Amino acid sequence: MTRPESDRLVMKFGGTSMGDLERIRRAARIVAAEAASGKKIAVVVSAMAGKTNELVAWTDGAGRPGQGIELSDDEYDVVVASGEQVTSGLLALTLRNMGLNARSWMGWQIPILTDDAHGRARIEDVPGEVLGAALDKGEIAVVPGFQGVTRDGRITTLGRGGSDTSAVAVAAALGCSCDIYTDVDGVYTTDPRIESRARRLEKVSYEEMLEMASLGAKVLQTRSVELAMAKQVPVRVLSSFIEPDENGVLPAKSGTLICDEEEIVEKRIVSGVTMSRDEARITLLGLSDRVEAPADVFTRLAEANVNVDMIVQSQARTEGAVNLTFTTGRRDAPRAAELMRAAQAQIGFEELRVDEDVAKVSVVGVGMRSHAGVAQTMFRALADKGVKFQAISTSEIKISVLIDAAYAELAVRALHSAYGLEAV
Amino acid sequence: MTRPESDRLVMKFGGTSMGDLERIRRAARIVAAEAASGKKIAVVVSAMAGKTNELVAWTDGAGRPGQGIELSDDEYDVVVASGEQVTSGLLALTLRNMGLNARSWMGWQIPILTDDAHGRARIEDVPGEVLGAALDKGEIAVVPGFQGVTRDGRITTLGRGGSDTSAVAVAAALGCSCDIYTDVDGVYTTDPRIESRARRLEKVSYEEMLEMASLGAKVLQTRSVELAMAKQVPVRVLSSFIEPDENGVLPAKSGTLICDEEEIVEKRIVSGVTMSRDEARITLLGLSDRVEAPADVFTRLAEANVNVDMIVQSQARTEGAVNLTFTTGRRDAPRAAELMRAAQAQIGFEELRVDEDVAKVSVVGVGMRSHAGVAQTMFRALADKGVKFQAISTSEIKISVLIDAAYAELAVRALHSAYGLEAV
Repeated sequence: MTRPESDRLVMKFGGTSMGDLERIRRAARIVAAEAASGKKIAVVVSAMAGKTNELVAWTDGAGRPGQGIELSDDEYDVVVASGEQVTSGLLALTLRNMGLNARSWMGWQIPILTDDAHGRARIEDVPGEVLGAALDKGEIAVVPGFQGVTRDGRITTLGRGGSDTSAVAVAAALGCSCDIYTDVDGVYTTDPRIESRARRLEKVSYEEMLEMASLGAKVLQTRSVELAMAKQVPVRVLSSFIEPDENGVLPAKSGTLICDEEEIVEKRIVSGVTMSRDEARITLLGLSDRVEAPADVFTRLAEANVNVDMIVQSQARTEGAVNLTFTTGRRDAPRAAELMRAAQAQIGFEELRVDEDVAKVSVVGVGMRSHAGVAQTMFRALADKGVKFQAISTSEIKISVLIDAAYAELAVRALHSAYGLEAV
Repeated sequence: MTRPESDRLVMKFGGTSMGDLERIRRAARIVAAEAASGKKIAVVVSAMAGKTNELVAWTDGAGRPGQGIELSDDEYDVVVASGEQVTSGLLALTLRNMGLNARSWMGWQIPILTDDAHGRARIEDVPGEVLGAALDKGEIAVVPGFQGVTRDGRITTLGRGGSDTSAVAVAAALGCSCDIYTDVDGVYTTDPRIESRARRLEKVSYEEMLEMASLGAKVLQTRSVELAMAKQVPVRVLSSFIEPDENGVLPAKSGTLICDEEEIVEKRIVSGVTMSRDEARITLLGLSDRVEAPADVFTRLAEANVNVDMIVQSQARTEGAVNLTFTTGRRDAPRAAELMRAAQAQIGFEELRVDEDVAKVSVVGVGMRSHAGVAQTMFRALADKGVKFQAISTSEIKISVLIDAAYAELAVRALHSAYGLEAV
């Protein structure tokens, strides 16, 4: 499905692009250039870089209770949402000062309706009428990202990185595409700081981007990609370090377009290699080989909202026992370990080990669906470099391996080369 | 008219009392003590001290146009109103952390309806139903001061010092009195930094407070006193540097009660002496003695929104000419002088002088209405100290004189003593 080209456009600027008045002016010049080219524009902005952290620290200090977070997160949202309110007003002022017609629209004014899961709310609906009417009368609408409002009128925030999701939701409401200006100039085959031969992808499918985002490529927040896929919003990731020329015209858009798989003519087997250090490996040694034992372990973790990614079970040295290994997010690991230790007697295991010195390396590509041999290439490339893997997980379009962290960069470079990503 | 004692109470804390998390906790302890005594409470808060200045500076930098301020002040309000949003959320969190039931109510949630004069909006209506219902179900309502919302849903701010006005408006809506916690412990007969024998007034009438506020006593914003008088809201000014005792009980309330004249049993002729350095004196020498000339001058000033306070006309040395002296606020003086110079030919005067080295010293008291000799005492006291006055203005309850700034403190002390204020 390709949607007809719209004369509307959503532009999103992150915290770095809103970091101070000079950067806000730079963003405003980019907006002005798009407006001059005839686009009707809504701009979604993050808070000034660092500001959200300051506000969150204040709420922590004011006594956001450790246990009863739920209780207080409505007021947390009141405090933290103010950061984007400030930048949206400042950008509107800056645009006006350049002679443009602009105004800010708070989440409660549009409204950006969310559920009431304060601190990590999900957008439920964004009516496009009010913003659409503003755009149609020639106004540039400036919308604070990250914030919304419940149906009974309380301020909410969407959780970290939520501004990308706001931008996609506004684009869906306006029936147009979304340009995300950020401090990188697109999505790469892998992290260029690890592999200098990494190449920018011109296009990447929603599915691939979703895997890359959740596997550690930090360009876009996972939920924003999910929403873009669900609503078929074309998203372009672009560098904010550009300037219109002397005639106020922007350079031709490069960056990376995130779009439907069907719109990508040149199909690749593997589009990218990702690496994440946000994992921890927990091993229960000498776990009872009762069939209920693993279920007991994972039920306890699920009830405590600990997400488990990879799972490996192997034979233990002790007769009638197994070793159970699983991975969690690194932040959840201490809590998961605590849960296991507290229930050691009930679960029945001999020893617990936590290893944070691990990395998850993944290859992602929609071409895997129709090509055999992808896993084989991966395992051979790793074996050639002497990299052992401790666990594997796969989906239709990705293969991930857990390895010793010391080998992470080596593995990324080996895989990048094995799939010929620098040459495509 | 004395209103029946209400079980509701509005408490207001200024920017110093909200300056950091420790001060917010102190304010919360005072609120908790009032709640424990059985009061149903709404708290009105200012932004953290210094925060509003930072936000205003950002809007200036973003290009709040010098000439076209009107055009942009809606976005100025979006930015600047965020300061109180932050403190109201933080105070609500702090109160919850102490086990109290509290929530914040933004101006648009209550709503605090204002006109659309952005940056200096006037409150038009505060429906008491929503807040009243919250209080009646045992919730402490935390309300950001200084902010409101227009009838078409845009954020407004009330201008500097507007949080006092917010507090009085909320108290009027809730039908109760208003305690204003500040960094002074009440209203004094004069500025204690000038006259150490200044005495705190236990009660002062709305009319007197209004004169004192507009004459330079900076305890309360003038508009908050006007509103309190119009709505008959008793306002108490109190020190925020108090602590509940070990049983959570506050010390007996002292401070100053601002109330109806009829509730003040002990009538004084003069209640206070004020001094202001915010004046400038402008003299047009050799002004044509055409009868239209002064009208021409004051019409031009009025059309430029320059308020004129005192006016003195005297004979000039030149035949057929007069000297016209008037005072304006110091901030307006350069603009007023510019206006006069630009129209020198049309108005017809020889020379313009601006003198900012002046002070206005005033005595205020409702007792003047029924007592003769107040002015006489003033002039004799000044004459005894060799203080000449350059202009006089009077109202029913005050007499002001403009003097050389060098004599200001001397004059204040002389008048404070002449009316026996330290001895009452």
